[in-house]
Amino acid sequence: MKNPILIAVDAMGGDNSPNKIIEGISIHSKKSNDVNYKIFGDQDKILSLINKYKIDKTRFEIVHTSNVIEDSDSALTAAKKGKDTSLWLSIESLKNNQTNAVVSAGNTGALFVIAKLNLKMIENIDKPALSALWPNKSGMNIVLDLGANIECSEKNLIDFSIMGSALHKALFENEISKVALLNIGSEELKGNSVIKNTYQFLSERKNNLYELHGYIEGNNIMDGNVNVIVTDGFTGNVALKTAEGTANFITSELKKALTSTLLGKISSFINLKNLKNFKDKLDPRLYNGAILLGLDKPVIKSHGSTDSLGFANSLNVCEKIIKGKLINKIKENIN
Amino acid sequence: MKNPILIAVDAMGGDNSPNKIIEGISIHSKKSNDVNYKIFGDQDKILSLINKYKIDKTRFEIVHTSNVIEDSDSALTAAKKGKDTSLWLSIESLKNNQTNAVVSAGNTGALFVIAKLNLKMIENIDKPALSALWPNKSGMNIVLDLGANIECSEKNLIDFSIMGSALHKALFENEISKVALLNIGSEELKGNSVIKNTYQFLSERKNNLYELHGYIEGNNIMDGNVNVIVTDGFTGNVALKTAEGTANFITSELKKALTSTLLGKISSFINLKNLKNFKDKLDPRLYNGAILLGLDKPVIKSHGSTDSLGFANSLNVCEKIIKGKLINKIKENIN
Repeated sequence: MKNPILIAVDAMGGDNSPNKIIEGISIHSKKSNDVNYKIFGDQDKILSLINKYKIDKTRFEIVHTSNVIEDSDSALTAAKKGKDTSLWLSIESLKNNQTNAVVSAGNTGALFVIAKLNLKMIENIDKPALSALWPNKSGMNIVLDLGANIECSEKNLIDFSIMGSALHKALFENEISKVALLNIGSEELKGNSVIKNTYQFLSERKNNLYELHGYIEGNNIMDGNVNVIVTDGFTGNVALKTAEGTANFITSELKKALTSTLLGKISSFINLKNLKNFKDKLDPRLYNGAILLGLDKPVIKSHGSTDSLGFANSLNVCEKIIKGKLINKIKENIN
Repeated sequence: MKNPILIAVDAMGGDNSPNKIIEGISIHSKKSNDVNYKIFGDQDKILSLINKYKIDKTRFEIVHTSNVIEDSDSALTAAKKGKDTSLWLSIESLKNNQTNAVVSAGNTGALFVIAKLNLKMIENIDKPALSALWPNKSGMNIVLDLGANIECSEKNLIDFSIMGSALHKALFENEISKVALLNIGSEELKGNSVIKNTYQFLSERKNNLYELHGYIEGNNIMDGNVNVIVTDGFTGNVALKTAEGTANFITSELKKALTSTLLGKISSFINLKNLKNFKDKLDPRLYNGAILLGLDKPVIKSHGSTDSLGFANSLNVCEKIIKGKLINKIKENIN
């Protein structure tokens, strides 16, 4: 291998793996020449897929393992399955500086626990946060925490503001990071005491990383006026999943409505390209790749149910984070 | 007046009032013969609108007041403005059993505070909850609390389950009420201790009012498998507003996409009727009318920015709640 970036890929996690993983690597490897892949999993299956998808032999290496963590395993069971699983070995390669980032489409709880067992936290950060991309009218939001921590202190939310802004800068280097706290009123007086104290602290804290834009309500998340949205893991998870459910509901109702008559079918067919543009813009595969922030190495979670294109996007997130020096950016801005 | 149901209407609250309020009464009065209206506000303005919208003179009476609570007033300022505002007087008429329910499109905080000052809580209920309708694939959900209480105990969530089910029964008498607790995992082990304890208590509690369907995640709110969704006011408010924001984002993107080319414009025009059906089904005016549950009389909040059709729907909610004996249903099921 000649290239500097090496991504550790757990090939065995998520639906329809390793097929979508290897096809995802194939898609990504054709777009980017700067990344190689260290692939962990069943060697025979992986090799036959690599032949199928015609991946350049100089771009990957395989570490064989037959032990796999199932989606149904509890985090504890997964951790006990231990050191010869594809997930554990891929994280261990990151720990040992053999790779620059790790990505898995497997069991989220297992990924968190095994990552925390193997990797150090960044100094002065107490809790890791799960963050992801969420589209808005003018581009993309970073939203965190999406479920790693059910309850959060002021210190946690302040850390999330800094980490989220650093991630935003790493992914979108030409944009200004604009932080807002998710709340139930835009006036300063609403919300619980943790949120109010966090706002107070952030507004007094000097920084060169982001602009503070106060509070934001759920209906303004997608307006594009801010791009780093900070909340506790319970609220963030409910908000993200409610948005998913609403989007699914509306698009399925739309499909029903547009095709409910013959004339409707015909005119929708004429309008196919426009509808496709609409669908493409909302395609969740484009936003695939959640980042576990707070660990001193990059750990990326792909959605388990995504396909090869979605997985390729999570590899793209890995690449951007490494090139954007995410971990250094966080360290420089945490006191 | 000959009819048994009399609704107290605050004519002065919300955008474009009293115009939309009186037009809303006109719409509702033509659909329902069982309701009359006691209208509180500026008599001259109201009378001229009543003439404009040709409302039957036997169906209403007017209580004149010139003092009005503004949307920008704090709840405290509003309460201090006192007993000659249209909001206060309409609630007072409910307190004195002159009317059967009150509805206002005005200042939410003021409505809560003045309602709580004047009305009693139902015995054994500690906190009132704001609940509203939220569409799902097979009909309507009741979701509560939507922002009255930032923090909730097990007792509060249990009360909300009972009150939400009673409301569901009052509005949809032929359906089975199916209660679920909003959580971040469907497995029994996720969520905070308040939610887990609430689930434990509800699963052991015998009742004839509802079926308990465990936990629900945000992405399943609109699936139609349950119809009473219980959560604390912070989470509920974020979820509802996030759904609103997502719906607005998608429909505006859709509009852009469908009309971005001339051919697109033409075919969308052909498909206009189907698109209208789609829009109608998602029309937020159809779901207008939030209910403040826990008080011993029915208090209904219309969205401030709705129009006359939306306000007419909130009058319809009032009528259904009174006919469905909501308050009695709650009392019978609270121990």
